[in-house]
Amino acid sequence: MKTVSVGIVGGTGYTGVELLRLLAAHPQAQVTMITSRSEEGVAVADMYPNLRGVYDLRFSVPDIDQLKTCDVVFFATPHGVAMSMAKDLIESGTKVIDLAADFRLENLTAWQHWYKHEATQGELMASAVYGLPEYYREQIKKAMIIGNPGCYPTSILLGILPLLKAGLVKTDSIIADGKSGVSGAGRGASVANLGAEMSESFKAYGVAGHRHHPEMQEKLSQLAGEEVGLTFVPHLVPMVRGMESTIYATLTEDKSQAQLQALFETAYQNEPFVDVMPAGSLPETRMVKGSNMCRMAVYRPAGSNQVVVTSVIDNLVKGASGQAIQNMNILFDLPETLGLNQVALLP
Amino acid sequence: MKTVSVGIVGGTGYTGVELLRLLAAHPQAQVTMITSRSEEGVAVADMYPNLRGVYDLRFSVPDIDQLKTCDVVFFATPHGVAMSMAKDLIESGTKVIDLAADFRLENLTAWQHWYKHEATQGELMASAVYGLPEYYREQIKKAMIIGNPGCYPTSILLGILPLLKAGLVKTDSIIADGKSGVSGAGRGASVANLGAEMSESFKAYGVAGHRHHPEMQEKLSQLAGEEVGLTFVPHLVPMVRGMESTIYATLTEDKSQAQLQALFETAYQNEPFVDVMPAGSLPETRMVKGSNMCRMAVYRPAGSNQVVVTSVIDNLVKGASGQAIQNMNILFDLPETLGLNQVALLP
Amino acid sequence: MKTVSVGIVGGTGYTGVELLRLLAAHPQAQVTMITSRSEEGVAVADMYPNLRGVYDLRFSVPDIDQLKTCDVVFFATPHGVAMSMAKDLIESGTKVIDLAADFRLENLTAWQHWYKHEATQGELMASAVYGLPEYYREQIKKAMIIGNPGCYPTSILLGILPLLKAGLVKTDSIIADGKSGVSGAGRGASVANLGAEMSESFKAYGVAGHRHHPEMQEKLSQLAGEEVGLTFVPHLVPMVRGMESTIYATLTEDKSQAQLQALFETAYQNEPFVDVMPAGSLPETRMVKGSNMCRMAVYRPAGSNQVVVTSVIDNLVKGASGQAIQNMNILFDLPETLGLNQVALLP
Amino acid sequence: MKTVSVGIVGGTGYTGVELLRLLAAHPQAQVTMITSRSEEGVAVADMYPNLRGVYDLRFSVPDIDQLKTCDVVFFATPHGVAMSMAKDLIESGTKVIDLAADFRLENLTAWQHWYKHEATQGELMASAVYGLPEYYREQIKKAMIIGNPGCYPTSILLGILPLLKAGLVKTDSIIADGKSGVSGAGRGASVANLGAEMSESFKAYGVAGHRHHPEMQEKLSQLAGEEVGLTFVPHLVPMVRGMESTIYATLTEDKSQAQLQALFETAYQNEPFVDVMPAGSLPETRMVKGSNMCRMAVYRPAGSNQVVVTSVIDNLVKGASGQAIQNMNILFDLPETLGLNQVALLP
Repeated sequence: MKTVSVGIVGGTGYTGVELLRLLAAHPQAQVTMITSRSEEGVAVADMYPNLRGVYDLRFSVPDIDQLKTCDVVFFATPHGVAMSMAKDLIESGTKVIDLAADFRLENLTAWQHWYKHEATQGELMASAVYGLPEYYREQIKKAMIIGNPGCYPTSILLGILPLLKAGLVKTDSIIADGKSGVSGAGRGASVANLGAEMSESFKAYGVAGHRHHPEMQEKLSQLAGEEVGLTFVPHLVPMVRGMESTIYATLTEDKSQAQLQALFETAYQNEPFVDVMPAGSLPETRMVKGSNMCRMAVYRPAGSNQVVVTSVIDNLVKGASGQAIQNMNILFDLPETLGLNQVALLP
Repeated sequence: MKTVSVGIVGGTGYTGVELLRLLAAHPQAQVTMITSRSEEGVAVADMYPNLRGVYDLRFSVPDIDQLKTCDVVFFATPHGVAMSMAKDLIESGTKVIDLAADFRLENLTAWQHWYKHEATQGELMASAVYGLPEYYREQIKKAMIIGNPGCYPTSILLGILPLLKAGLVKTDSIIADGKSGVSGAGRGASVANLGAEMSESFKAYGVAGHRHHPEMQEKLSQLAGEEVGLTFVPHLVPMVRGMESTIYATLTEDKSQAQLQALFETAYQNEPFVDVMPAGSLPETRMVKGSNMCRMAVYRPAGSNQVVVTSVIDNLVKGASGQAIQNMNILFDLPETLGLNQVALLP
Repeated sequence: MKTVSVGIVGGTGYTGVELLRLLAAHPQAQVTMITSRSEEGVAVADMYPNLRGVYDLRFSVPDIDQLKTCDVVFFATPHGVAMSMAKDLIESGTKVIDLAADFRLENLTAWQHWYKHEATQGELMASAVYGLPEYYREQIKKAMIIGNPGCYPTSILLGILPLLKAGLVKTDSIIADGKSGVSGAGRGASVANLGAEMSESFKAYGVAGHRHHPEMQEKLSQLAGEEVGLTFVPHLVPMVRGMESTIYATLTEDKSQAQLQALFETAYQNEPFVDVMPAGSLPETRMVKGSNMCRMAVYRPAGSNQVVVTSVIDNLVKGASGQAIQNMNILFDLPETLGLNQVALLP
Repeated sequence: MKTVSVGIVGGTGYTGVELLRLLAAHPQAQVTMITSRSEEGVAVADMYPNLRGVYDLRFSVPDIDQLKTCDVVFFATPHGVAMSMAKDLIESGTKVIDLAADFRLENLTAWQHWYKHEATQGELMASAVYGLPEYYREQIKKAMIIGNPGCYPTSILLGILPLLKAGLVKTDSIIADGKSGVSGAGRGASVANLGAEMSESFKAYGVAGHRHHPEMQEKLSQLAGEEVGLTFVPHLVPMVRGMESTIYATLTEDKSQAQLQALFETAYQNEPFVDVMPAGSLPETRMVKGSNMCRMAVYRPAGSNQVVVTSVIDNLVKGASGQAIQNMNILFDLPETLGLNQVALLP
């Protein structure tokens, strides 16, 4: 039984600790190094005491030669870091899974606009595969670089694509109302994300546009085969983990609730991490807390030609680290669910 | 200086205690009786210790003759109760403000369908005025019975009506994505609203339809002068108080962000309880916690013909008891803001 | 490799779903039946959607003959149920682990006083073993009936016993200030535990005494070899899971911080589920969320002869279902940590 | 009717915005200036949108000559600022109320130790009065400088002093287990107080000692007339506002529950902001949210010689800004409750 040796670059944030939590339960992966310039020498279990007794690792300064000894390197870094190191790694045979946005967009102009960074590695970016297994599995199998999707895109693409691919909805006016727990904002000190600021309050944010918007627009257009118009408003929920997206689209032909239900069930019947809930039920974020599942429901409000999809994920699992491991499993020809069978923590 | 004598029927729920909290600060209102069959004889301060030292009242069994001695009676009761007592009260000159839904709808068929109750008082219902002062102020002044609006309708109607009245958006495809804190579900024991169930989770609910939908549809159509098609999905936020609605509409003519901003500022320039926030800012529910304000923002996402309005209220104040007192002030020709100048509790 | 066949009686509450979540990850246990009178025929995955795709079980009416076919039966029932069925089960060789209080106390008079129930099975109760493995492991190995400890007792006994057993503190004036998340109150509908009541608030409760008090007093006295006087005040924390206890005792001889630290580290050096944190650090409940760990710290405030211990557990895991499975592992001579290596969910 | 002109130095934190919220309802106070170096020129309503429409003020750079035109200046600043400006102000007749710790301690050595600052104004510090009106009212009336108490000291001193002053408890072993919402940590960006870090978790903190400890020790000893030994452990509650303290003391003579209840009721019978709750009830922090009340209960656990007091305040009101205004009212011979009759926001 082979073991995949794993390096993590930039593991001090929430996606880093979540990678560690999940990989601890993976029978065929071994984290051999984890890097952080600022925390060099600190034991990961000192920074994240939930890992006490689980890992004996310390953060080290990133060293490209050492990273090359890994089978795969996860980047849980700010945007721009993976781009600067990926070429060396893949040339020596080490696969790269970037949890940031360096390899999500094919449109370099859009990337530079949104990430305020020069896209120095256009060729690499073109060779990368978007790591949404439900729609890019075959390409992932052959890839060296994976651009792991953003959390909003994961929940929204999975929710709307069955309708778009079936050609059942207007493509110019899709609306996605997204809601995220505050862990999505990361572990950086900030006033806006203080508990005293965000608890017991709810708000929309990102009025000037959100980086996940071009990502969704690009992938939706690509998969639908035509330009898709999407209005996306993200909101902050006073909770730690979880993301819900409510997606509204206009039907172009009359379909019953039952027909829509069947469409979704068929679309995802073989997907281990997408759960189409029974007609009449609605997903709650707690139904996926800590797990790699995306649960969704589709329904048709009475007296309109709208269709509504609600979709939930744990933003740190299926929306980040869990999906990254799912991609790793595909890259290394392991069972796709290996190490990812955690049951959501409810209540 | 006259004093309005106030009776409250059914004061054991959250809108009841909120009426008491707000009326304690009202210089020209005096709560003279508060009723509850189940809590007869209990001091309100024993049930609601925040009122210790503020009120000396005890719950009494509702007595129509005693209630007739009040200038106004608020009903903070289940649906159907106000309907059964209102006639007697108004005939003896006592005005009625119903915080439940008995007098919100003109369409009796819809009312009976949604409230599973016979609409025994069709004539009374027709004579009642919908208590949204920003749009029905003149009628309220002359009314004997006020149907105090629901919380979702308050936040959504205030948000969309400037656009609808200006004829700027398509009327057949308005989308309102509403989010409410759990106090909106009331004080009845229920598993779904336990802290262990709703904390740290987010969900859509009401897939089978929500009672506030026909209320909104009726008022929107009435005020727009044509049939309005509205898709409405309510969501539960893990917090106690607060409601945010994000409303999406399609512009029928091109309007700039600045033009939309000006439209909203003009629409509400004389309204003491509606605050149009500066362009580029977005309201948060904590900005209105405990206050009677509705704060909103309008914006135009780039690259689409959509307009988005986000609107926040405290569901128990502007969404219920505060608005009821605002209506009382209008009914009794008092300054509309009297007793309602509480500053929101932030943080 | 043997597989333990497991029955669960009364699985609709939080300890029931938590047993199912944890047992899903246990390689040598198989849940073969789960009972509930009220939910007969309902799929567990319909009641607890986090289990969708994990269990195919339905709730059945409890049938003693079927339960006898199990190797072990967990009772996640109200007090009194396990007592009524345990005798039949153990006579046919089926072991019993009661998550309620039927088998926690040896003092039947105290039991009857606190649980308002006749202690009909005095002999059985005397034969049961208190399932706190760190102090009763040898007895557990040979037991047929386990009284699984309460959550407060677990966190408090583990915290204070090293000091008591070492004879270092006054035994007549131990103070335990306990704090619990609301899941500890169970899944019954109640006004006091509504999200709108308990969120954003903190309180002491149980002024008239708490059932866990006699349980702690009995076990402490038993293990200390003399009567122990304990003052215990429980508090409700606005969160779902987690329990922290801060324990105060008076030193009878002068011991340094380092000596106390060494005492605790030695006491628990071989315990897989007790983590004595480094001097100067303090445990947080999120460090054990979803895991079977108890983490604790001991410190000596300057300028006093007091010693303070803070101890955290997940009330549903080490405080209930996880500890029950730990006991099952001991009963069946399996590795004690089998299936219990979940890493806490942080953040 | 005189109006007190108020200046606020350093008004960008939570105690600053809370002063503004409360003073907006004060009929005889007028905030004439508010300073902040970092936010010069910013409208307070832009920083704190709950104040939109309430204040027209902008933050200005602190100017001692302008501040001297005020009747009173509140310092809502880091430790050390009030000390540097107070002398000039009082010499020109402007009274000073410091919400930081510059004037809380008489023991300068302790002050310097805990606040890492040179106590440059020993004489001033000696002339200041500790602003706990229930115990220092007569001195406050004649003071020029008030050291407004810390939040923990307010809740704990009010809770224990009736027992200490009556000589009923051992003075060498008082235990105070304090719990605070996260607003007590202020509005500075920090990782530890992020919503993603502190939500859904509970912890003790301050193992190395807390600055409020010497403050309590000094005042308790002063008022008890002998050295008092206090063990104090603070905890962080996952909520925004509110503080609960559970205080344990050992009775030196046998007193019944009824006698203790009578002692407390008598002690506070004339205090407008201390509420001794009925025997058998327990205060919750939500019973004082947004109000200046301290509510408390005393009880005697069965079978011990301990007495337990639980005491709740809103840390930002009675624990800071509300108490500061109460002190202002006393200083200017206004009714002590003026502007402070806000009813707690419940739910």
